[in-house]
Parts: sequence; structure tokens; C-alpha cells
Amino acid sequence: MGVSATAAKTDAGLGALDRLLVATQDEMAKVNALILKRADSHVEMVPELARYLIEAGGKRLRPMLTVAAALLFGRATGAQTNYAAAVEFMHNATLLHDDVVDESDMRRGRPAARIIWGNQASVLVGDYLLGQAFLMMVETGRLDALGVLAKAATIIAEGEVFQLSKAGDVTATPDDYNQVIRAKTATLFQAAAEVGAMAGGADESGRAALRDYGMELGLAFQLVDDVLDYRGESGAMGKNTGDDLREGKMTLPVILALADGNPQEREIITASLGKPDASDSALAQVVAIMNRYNALGRTVDAAHEHVRAARAALAPLPHSEMRDILSDIAEFYVSRAY
Amino acid sequence: MGVSATAAKTDAGLGALDRLLVATQDEMAKVNALILKRADSHVEMVPELARYLIEAGGKRLRPMLTVAAALLFGRATGAQTNYAAAVEFMHNATLLHDDVVDESDMRRGRPAARIIWGNQASVLVGDYLLGQAFLMMVETGRLDALGVLAKAATIIAEGEVFQLSKAGDVTATPDDYNQVIRAKTATLFQAAAEVGAMAGGADESGRAALRDYGMELGLAFQLVDDVLDYRGESGAMGKNTGDDLREGKMTLPVILALADGNPQEREIITASLGKPDASDSALAQVVAIMNRYNALGRTVDAAHEHVRAARAALAPLPHSEMRDILSDIAEFYVSRAY
Repeated sequence: MGVSATAAKTDAGLGALDRLLVATQDEMAKVNALILKRADSHVEMVPELARYLIEAGGKRLRPMLTVAAALLFGRATGAQTNYAAAVEFMHNATLLHDDVVDESDMRRGRPAARIIWGNQASVLVGDYLLGQAFLMMVETGRLDALGVLAKAATIIAEGEVFQLSKAGDVTATPDDYNQVIRAKTATLFQAAAEVGAMAGGADESGRAALRDYGMELGLAFQLVDDVLDYRGESGAMGKNTGDDLREGKMTLPVILALADGNPQEREIITASLGKPDASDSALAQVVAIMNRYNALGRTVDAAHEHVRAARAALAPLPHSEMRDILSDIAEFYVSRAY
Repeated sequence: MGVSATAAKTDAGLGALDRLLVATQDEMAKVNALILKRADSHVEMVPELARYLIEAGGKRLRPMLTVAAALLFGRATGAQTNYAAAVEFMHNATLLHDDVVDESDMRRGRPAARIIWGNQASVLVGDYLLGQAFLMMVETGRLDALGVLAKAATIIAEGEVFQLSKAGDVTATPDDYNQVIRAKTATLFQAAAEVGAMAGGADESGRAALRDYGMELGLAFQLVDDVLDYRGESGAMGKNTGDDLREGKMTLPVILALADGNPQEREIITASLGKPDASDSALAQVVAIMNRYNALGRTVDAAHEHVRAARAALAPLPHSEMRDILSDIAEFYVSRAY
């Protein structure tokens, strides 16, 4: 019964992604063309590196969210193309800088850009993409939407610094974790949805609904990501299982396991936490402890709560096919955890 | 005679700096207060690192330029405070990222922030300052000025990447060098002067005059900086003499020396170029070769040409005390080369 309910959820989720892809495909074609165009530069290394990262693709979930939000309100004037490309550039700038900060070797299933072009170029091309993002926003002539993204940029950087300051800190709490993921991940989902709503001509209540939806979706997304880091297979994820543990990232699963584990179990966890060369068998021991206290399951439960909140945020809006898709897509992203 | 002319020039220059400091001090007090306020964050490491860098001070030349340009046109409405602080934040963000890219140990006479807080925090706090810069621009409600700074941000990053791609490249030309310093340095001087003019209510011709002035001033400034890297004393400069050579930076002095030197001299230069552990005596040999071909003198000459162009850019504007100060200040920055 539990299994079939899960399977049904997963099917509904997959259906939602297909529906979202179809509903946004025309707009996303424009966004993708703009992304490629604006990643260009007469300085060769810029488009080489930018396109390497951008063409690896990822799911383009954030710009799709912007486009979908604009279409939801039905009065999309075209600004959503620039907004969506700007959101994707901000995201890619963050990835380039994150990989330098985390000393990551892999990204989107390929060697990270910094492995090929070096940390230096990754930092600078990230800066370039951030500048282009703001420039594309300026071109739309809407200062209020630009303000949303500028504010998001500062909150994201603040969240990354906070995460860094908590790295390997065994006293980190679930509240610390929530503060980190709200800032570093959910803020961009929130901004992506909000500027989309603005491009679609939403009124203040519509804008607030999408803002709340984006935040909750982003929180659910990161919670699942942090579960997958312990559950996933490196091929499927594009990064390596156990990276968070080895980098000392205080994600909810490790915080819960440390809180509930006995002294011996805590010692097993801390022996691998923040140790880049922790072995796979040491990782397996940590995962076993997590499972003993249902730390991964409770993290998925927390994601489900945010999915419910995301759906609730959209509920007051008039019924439409796009509203249903956005409601269901949240479920899809949590279904990745199974 | 040559000596006394130089001494007179230096005196005139020092006078110009004092006059600029006095003429901008009230406005700069507001700018400095805003800078400290906006470097704050509930994430402790952000203000710690940002203030460490910002309080080390530097000359605040760029924001002073913004303020002076606003006052020059006499209809300054207050936006110059935000613009000037944004310019200084952009500059400091660039410094933080540059020090990571260049692996610098010193900045403004103290250990670089990355030595104390690490490369990771330097990258992220740089991102934070960049976000705050855009946010302060948004708050003024002027999209056109924001566009000037957003465009500058992309050009600066592009210039840094171009410089990186030319590191240690003995085929680099004076044109390559000009392209690098226009982008990475002079563009921010240009933007600082232009947004200042905008805040001061300049018309299009006034804005163009300050744009040209800022560009020429920035070029002169960087040329002198690149001379001082071979001539300076590390205490006075806040960085180490010979850093550019050891980092493989293709600045004009080294490009000219490579072009004019004989095969043996070229070999002496390339033996130290891009070698972090090149000895001080190896550096002295390179400087001797530069002096043999007057490579440093010709670089100073080029700076003087840009000073003349900077003065010429201001000449069509109505006479005023501030116009004279801005004309003379260009001379002051070149006088640092003596």
C-alpha cells in the first residue's frame, strides 16, 4: 500500500514535468536563445566556459518557473524572456562560485568548469554572468523586478557565507539549516516565481502568492537534494554521493543524526564530517546511523510539508491548467527522493 | 631643471588632492557612513571581512570621483551618495575576487582578506558586495544609471578574463594591454564619473565629457600603477614590488622590454615571468633591462598622454573650481610615478 501510493505519486509527478515542459516550450525556446546569445563575448574564454556549463543544461527549472508564472497570469508582455534568462545566469554564476568554494570536481555529470579552466576563470566568468543578468533586467525597464533580483543576489551570498561559517560545526541546529537553505536556494526560486508573476501582470496578491509558492518549492527542492546526497547514485546526480558529508555541510540529515545518535554514533559521524578523504565504507556507516533514526525519512517529510505549503499558496488563485501544473510540479521534485 | 619641473608637478598634484578632499568631504562623510551601514549583515563573517577591507581604506578615489562629478554640475539631488557607495562596493568586490584570482598575499598594506578568512569567504563576500551595490542603485530609482554600472560590471569581468588568458603570453601586444586596462580598470573610473554627472543633473554633453574624462583618468591611473609595480617599495604600495612579473601579468613595461630586448634579455625576462618564486635579484635584472630601453619611462609618457586627454575632455565645460580640481587631480595620480 505504501509502495503503490509512492508509485502513484511518482507517476503524477512525472506527468507534471511533461505538462510543464509542453506548456512552457515556446517561451523557453526564446529564453534558451537569449541565454546562448548573452553568454557570448569577444573574450573567447568567456563563452567557452559559460557554454560548457550552460549547455550541460540542468533542468532549467528556475527560468521555467519564471515563464510559467508569467503565463499563469495571462498578460505576459515579453519581459519574462529577459527575466528568465537573468534568473538562469544568476543561478549559473552561483554554481561557478560554489564549485570554487566547495572545491567540487563534478557538476551536472561532467568535470566542473574549474577543473578545466581553473578557479580563476570560474570566479571571473561567474562575475560576468552576474553582470549580464543585471543588464538583461535593466533592458526590460522595470526597476521593481530588478530590485527583487538584486535583493535575492545579496541574500544568496549571505546564505552561502552563513553555510560556510557553519561547515563542520556539530552544534548547528535545524534552525541554522533552515536559514541556510531559505537564503542560498529558496530565495532564487522565490525571486524567479515573483518576477515571472510581475512579467505576467499579476496584482499584489498574485505576486505574493507566487513569492510564497517559490519559497516553499525551493525549500522542498533543497531538502530533497540534501537527502539525495546520501541516497543518490553519483551517475544520476551529476555529483558524488556523500559530498556534503565530506565537505562538512551541516544538512538536516546529519544534524538530526547527530542530535539523536549515542556518543559512539556521533563519533562515527564526526570522524567523516568535513574529511575529504572519508572512505565509502565510512560513508555507509553514517548512512546506516541516519537510517536508524529515520533522519533521511524525516527530511523527506519536511520536504512534503513545504510541498503542501506551496500548493496552499496557489490555492486562492483562479483555477487554470497552469496553476495545476505548478501545484503538481512541487510533488514531482519531492518524488525524486524515492 | 628636469628635477625641479618634476618637483613642481608633484607639488601641484598634492595640492589637487587636498583640494579634492576638502571639496568632497561633506558628501564623502555621507558616503562613508552608507558604506559602513551597507557592509553590515546578520551573518557575522560578512561585515567582519567587508569592514576589514573597507576600513583599510584605500584612497576612495572612485567614489570621490562620483561625488565630485555630481557637485560639478551643481544640481546634485542626493543620488550621488548611493551611486558613490555602489561604485566603492563594486571596486571592493573586484579586489576580493582579484586577490583570489591572483593568489595575492597583501592588499592595502595588510594581509589580503583571503589570507585571514580564506578564498571561499572572499569569493562570497565579493558577491554580497556586488549585490548590495545593485540594490543601492535600485533604491535611487534611476534605471539609466544602473545600466551604466551593470554594463561596467560585465566589461570589468570580461577584461579580467582577457588578462587571465594573456598571462605569461610573450606575444601579448600593447593593444592587448590597452584592451585589458580599459576594461578592468578604466571602465569603473568611467562609470563612476558618468553616474556622478547623472546625479548632478548633467545634460548629455556633460555626461559624455565626464565619461571621457573618467576613461582617460582610469587609463593614466593603471599605467602608473603598472610602473609602480616595478619601481615602488612594498611598504608604500601595500603590495609587493614585482608581483606583476611573478604573476605573469603582461603589462606595458614588460611588453615593451620584450619587444626591444635582444634574445638574451628576452630570456632573462621570460625566466622570471609568471614564476611566483622569482628572486629579488632576478627582478632587479628585469628592471635593469626595462630601464635600458626606457620601458618604464615610456609607460609614464603614455600615462601623461591620457592625463592630457582627461584635461581636454573637461575643457569644454564651464569654468569652475571643481573642474580645475578634476583637471589637476589627473596630474596628481601620474606624479605618483616619480
